[in-house]
Amino acid sequence: MEMEGYYGKKSKWPKPMFWGLTAFLAAVGIGLGVIIGHFTAPKGPECAVPTPDSNVGSTPMPGVNVIDPINAANIEENLRYFTKVPHIAGSPAERSNAEYIRDKWIEQGLDSAKLVPYDVLLSYPNDTIRNKVSILEDGNEIFHSRLEEAVLRPGDDHPDVVPPFNAYSYQGEPEGDLVYANYARVEDFEYLEKTHSDIKLNGTIIIARYGKIFRGNKALNAQAAGAKGLILYSDPADYAIDDGDIKVYPDGWWLPETGAQRGNTFVSDAKGDPVTPGYPAKPFAFRIDDYDTALPKIPVHPIGYGDAQLLLGNMTGEEVIDEWKGHLPVTYRLGPGFNDSSRNVKMTIHTTRETRTTYDVIGFIRGEIEPDRYVVIGNHRDAWVYGAVDPSSGTAAFMEVSRVFGELRKSGWKPRRSIVFGSWGAEEYGLLGSTEFVEEFQRVLAARAVAYINVDSAVTGNYSLSVKSTPLLYQAIYAASKKVPDPEDLSTSLYDTWRDRLPADANDPNTLPRIKNMGSGSDFAPFMYRIGVPAMSMTFYYKYHSLGISSYPVYHSVYETFYYMKTFLDYDFLRHQAVARLWAEVARDLAESVILPFDCTDYVTKITGSMDTVRTAYEAQMAAQGITFDYIYSALANFSAAATEFEKVISQTDMKDLMALRRVNDQLMQLERAFIDPLGLPDRKFLRHIVFAPSSKNYYAADAFPGIVDAMYRIDEALDQDARWDIVKQQMAVTTHAIQSAVSTLQDVLAFDG
Amino acid sequence: MEMEGYYGKKSKWPKPMFWGLTAFLAAVGIGLGVIIGHFTAPKGPECAVPTPDSNVGSTPMPGVNVIDPINAANIEENLRYFTKVPHIAGSPAERSNAEYIRDKWIEQGLDSAKLVPYDVLLSYPNDTIRNKVSILEDGNEIFHSRLEEAVLRPGDDHPDVVPPFNAYSYQGEPEGDLVYANYARVEDFEYLEKTHSDIKLNGTIIIARYGKIFRGNKALNAQAAGAKGLILYSDPADYAIDDGDIKVYPDGWWLPETGAQRGNTFVSDAKGDPVTPGYPAKPFAFRIDDYDTALPKIPVHPIGYGDAQLLLGNMTGEEVIDEWKGHLPVTYRLGPGFNDSSRNVKMTIHTTRETRTTYDVIGFIRGEIEPDRYVVIGNHRDAWVYGAVDPSSGTAAFMEVSRVFGELRKSGWKPRRSIVFGSWGAEEYGLLGSTEFVEEFQRVLAARAVAYINVDSAVTGNYSLSVKSTPLLYQAIYAASKKVPDPEDLSTSLYDTWRDRLPADANDPNTLPRIKNMGSGSDFAPFMYRIGVPAMSMTFYYKYHSLGISSYPVYHSVYETFYYMKTFLDYDFLRHQAVARLWAEVARDLAESVILPFDCTDYVTKITGSMDTVRTAYEAQMAAQGITFDYIYSALANFSAAATEFEKVISQTDMKDLMALRRVNDQLMQLERAFIDPLGLPDRKFLRHIVFAPSSKNYYAADAFPGIVDAMYRIDEALDQDARWDIVKQQMAVTTHAIQSAVSTLQDVLAFDG
Repeated sequence: MEMEGYYGKKSKWPKPMFWGLTAFLAAVGIGLGVIIGHFTAPKGPECAVPTPDSNVGSTPMPGVNVIDPINAANIEENLRYFTKVPHIAGSPAERSNAEYIRDKWIEQGLDSAKLVPYDVLLSYPNDTIRNKVSILEDGNEIFHSRLEEAVLRPGDDHPDVVPPFNAYSYQGEPEGDLVYANYARVEDFEYLEKTHSDIKLNGTIIIARYGKIFRGNKALNAQAAGAKGLILYSDPADYAIDDGDIKVYPDGWWLPETGAQRGNTFVSDAKGDPVTPGYPAKPFAFRIDDYDTALPKIPVHPIGYGDAQLLLGNMTGEEVIDEWKGHLPVTYRLGPGFNDSSRNVKMTIHTTRETRTTYDVIGFIRGEIEPDRYVVIGNHRDAWVYGAVDPSSGTAAFMEVSRVFGELRKSGWKPRRSIVFGSWGAEEYGLLGSTEFVEEFQRVLAARAVAYINVDSAVTGNYSLSVKSTPLLYQAIYAASKKVPDPEDLSTSLYDTWRDRLPADANDPNTLPRIKNMGSGSDFAPFMYRIGVPAMSMTFYYKYHSLGISSYPVYHSVYETFYYMKTFLDYDFLRHQAVARLWAEVARDLAESVILPFDCTDYVTKITGSMDTVRTAYEAQMAAQGITFDYIYSALANFSAAATEFEKVISQTDMKDLMALRRVNDQLMQLERAFIDPLGLPDRKFLRHIVFAPSSKNYYAADAFPGIVDAMYRIDEALDQDARWDIVKQQMAVTTHAIQSAVSTLQDVLAFDG
Repeated sequence: MEMEGYYGKKSKWPKPMFWGLTAFLAAVGIGLGVIIGHFTAPKGPECAVPTPDSNVGSTPMPGVNVIDPINAANIEENLRYFTKVPHIAGSPAERSNAEYIRDKWIEQGLDSAKLVPYDVLLSYPNDTIRNKVSILEDGNEIFHSRLEEAVLRPGDDHPDVVPPFNAYSYQGEPEGDLVYANYARVEDFEYLEKTHSDIKLNGTIIIARYGKIFRGNKALNAQAAGAKGLILYSDPADYAIDDGDIKVYPDGWWLPETGAQRGNTFVSDAKGDPVTPGYPAKPFAFRIDDYDTALPKIPVHPIGYGDAQLLLGNMTGEEVIDEWKGHLPVTYRLGPGFNDSSRNVKMTIHTTRETRTTYDVIGFIRGEIEPDRYVVIGNHRDAWVYGAVDPSSGTAAFMEVSRVFGELRKSGWKPRRSIVFGSWGAEEYGLLGSTEFVEEFQRVLAARAVAYINVDSAVTGNYSLSVKSTPLLYQAIYAASKKVPDPEDLSTSLYDTWRDRLPADANDPNTLPRIKNMGSGSDFAPFMYRIGVPAMSMTFYYKYHSLGISSYPVYHSVYETFYYMKTFLDYDFLRHQAVARLWAEVARDLAESVILPFDCTDYVTKITGSMDTVRTAYEAQMAAQGITFDYIYSALANFSAAATEFEKVISQTDMKDLMALRRVNDQLMQLERAFIDPLGLPDRKFLRHIVFAPSSKNYYAADAFPGIVDAMYRIDEALDQDARWDIVKQQMAVTTHAIQSAVSTLQDVLAFDG
């Protein structure tokens, strides 16, 4: 019953009256845009007079209206189009979608749209030898896992559906005894070692459930433990929770027993094409040989919980502790091996690694006043199968956003800054398309991109908006979300419901909505962590925090269909519409505002709070080593003072002084770059953001200052403590320097203590 | 006789009439500056109207006159002031000079001037145990080298003169047999090994002459050969060439037998404070323990040729080949050891390594229209002793340049862009002051510095102007040097004489003057190679190319006195004046020009020529490995087309459109940055410029594309050829990518082939 809310408290369709009003408002918006565009454009010998903007001063003035014209029915139609056939990266369907988007963008009115190809390392199941997990009895196969997911609805059976596999898996046919390792986290293997040292993992095959951490890390953990192979399955405890009346696809939103989660196993700070780290995968590229240091050296394969039940239900060994138990109707045992000792398990994995071309599509609306400043908005296009959630719900919304901007452009409107539309290829393999693009254009993007706004899956649930962002953009997101109607109650705003359902502080009646740190996992990563472009990402989300699940249930399975989306997540596409509206409005604000809508004070507040957390956790330990937080807090105080002073400068900036405007905008744009250190984090040189980056050691404890937190992670147990303490000291200094660099950035002349 | 030219063909003093004219022109110049400043300033609600500039279009219009007011007598007075006492880095005298300069700059009219301290690792002779090289006979000292250089002129005997030493030398008292190793280059040691494998270098003490390569490399080479110590001396063949009537200090410009060359032995791609590579040496800094990987692990000590004669004249072993012979009246022998076997040599070296504070002085004139664009001009302030050449001739000129800009500023003039004046500390120890400054402000300098103009020693000879520069600045330098009168013949220009004496192509009657690639060795390095700020450096030079000497003779000795400068190099200070005028004029041009005076086509021409050289040298070898130059030449063709197209964009830019001007200026400024790769060169991560950097392997063959050239260096003899070829392939790709990044930079919207 508790689940009911997530299946969709269906909103009433908007009444015809509403659409008429919307169309009217849209027309007014476009007209207004043209007028503003006219006044904003410096023409002939007169000087440019920038339009005051809602973000400057206290008199809000509207820009063009990009909210009302966003149409839910169009998005539905788009999603139907993009989910017709599977469109895995490197396939003809992915290319054909790319060409479709390019042509559509031109038709919609963008100034240009082009395909940008990259020749990258991809990975597929072998065409002739099928991947499987078998049970052997005296060497003879008596069972094997499904070669493909069952077709549960007519029409889900397109011939191009790729069977479940883990991209970049090592090839091989290992045989061995099965050991159950829960989620295959570091702590799971440590528990095994500490409490069951009699179980020798060397040469075994690990079975572990999906969830909690990235599957690539599970593979590396199993490999480090000495396993010959890793079987990943989706346990009902995580993907089909029995709420008394459990319904699985096609009857409900949960994963059926035949579904398996595809996904890559590529672990790297670089991401992007595994063989061209740091550089674009163009024809001239040098491709490294030792790329598979970032890829597992053992076979990895995903199965459904139907198959898993057979494996787990026949295991021997001690029964697991409660925390390790899933929801299958079996007694979960550790192994090693089956209760019938004549049986063992064999993996047959012939997944390839091959170079293919993937395509980005780059659309462009040239800015009128500052064409060399880019607001980049992006979404990936490739899907494991139909991708109705991931990413095509985002792609469907994207095409509606581009339509609205294209219409405006056709009517003569030009934004102050350029808008770049990026439809990325091969995200599912490890952010390949976006990373290669950032690598190819890193100098110009670092010099010119003011922000990157990402939507991967637009709708993964129907509960609330969910946002990840740099603190710089908090205020822009709040402001935009207040303008967007709530999808369930059009009389209230998206902001209100978001705040109610995901409050930053549930006990505070004046709470703001919660905005999460960015973490990793989609195309914002290369923008934010490699070159310091302020970034955000958003989705409409399920009520994840009370469920404790790691993703929507059918994630990366064949059951991510249009039917699934329309039936269980967004019947009326109003959630898609809300995300698209917010996306368009934030982009418009960034592209039109005379002064960039960035809030430096929020950055100060956010990172000071994060540093307080670090200090609380580690101050005593560090003090014993003679390490002080004084320098960092002194730098934070400088940052705070500089931000306050800079806000004064902004408020006093003559809105007619174009050079002064460009100057403060450059400072705002450069602020995130101040946290970029070209030397990168320790052992992760391609993660260059000193404040925000996914922690390499602990996905939960750390959400900021990864350099310090990673170095402190269980330092008392480290083998070479002196070296570890040196890294801590070095990272404390690097952090201080990065914050001081932010201070320098907020001053337009060189500033130093003297 | 051939030498006569260098002793100073003394120019007549300017006649009184001339000075009157100069003063008049200066007054007019200032007045004009005020008028232009008035029109250039956007005031109140009117829009800014930029002044057309000589660099834009075909109608040259003058900016303020900074050439005529530069006064030779002032420079002479400045030099007298700065050479009064020794001012080694980290000394009270260095600090006191810093404070003097700060106060002077304020007095001269700069908007601000401040000391910026850095706590860096420096190195000094031990106060109590003197450094020396001894000859022992049966263990008893029968001779030791001079503890200090002889005082040859009254007044040269200041108590703060530091005895000759090599900074950062390892401490120790090694004893052993002496072996002569010519210049201690890699090829010298290879020659020894190949032709005299009977001479075991392990445990010996090497004596080698100064010249040809950086002394730090000599130390590393000797150490690698197994030597326990290295004695460096200045051979008359390199520092006191007998031209029939040789005159040494104080009678001539050559080095006397008692003179020895001080200097650091710090070899690093990072330079700057050896213990804080990559980060500023501020109180919060983390200081590494393993810094001495960049410092020699053997004692190194410099002596004069008087002492060297005693050591060399008593050696045993085979006589050396002609190329190894110096000009001492001894038979040069290889050793090992002395002809009296009861004797050996001992080094007593107790040079310290200690942390002290060095100071940069940063002056600032705030730009009126683009205060956030910096033209940086700089000179180091520290000297080994009196430093009349190195660097105080530059400092003397610098203070006159700042005086002229200060006077203009006082009269109301403001440049379009800010001018930053940097007086660097501790350059002699390895570019410490400038590098720490660049490290502290690397984000803002990378975003804002349009150029860096360096003068280390303003006058090292009296023959011709000599310039090192990025190709971007060639035209600005030519243009400025045409405006500066020649010091020997005021009726002609500095440009004309420069072209006559140092032609790019002596056989071409229409030749341009020669401008050298930057190489390393002064404070431009961190600007150019670390963050891609277009840089240049200049000096008035001796006729070095026919002499084959590596520096002016008294370089880094106590004999670098005011007397030396005035008597032998620049009696009337007109060469100082010419350098100061050129310096000021280039800075003015960069600070005032509406469009930056950068020439992209020169960059194309220069690097295409350099790549032709690389191709000629290596194409056959590479082809055999399947490596093609096609991608690089295709990128160069794109660069050429983009530069041509961009010049058209510039010529069509509306000079009243401030945003368009800022845009093309940003592109011009960013062009050098396009060659900066954050990953740096192989094994030299702090050298990030892909086109220009000193070669690590071969100082003569390579002047561009160090990544490729270093990887190709004697590749056929490499132990791990496959790995080396991989580096070659990777660097070919990195180079292609860097050139393509330059192409992207010249386009204001994202450009790709599609």
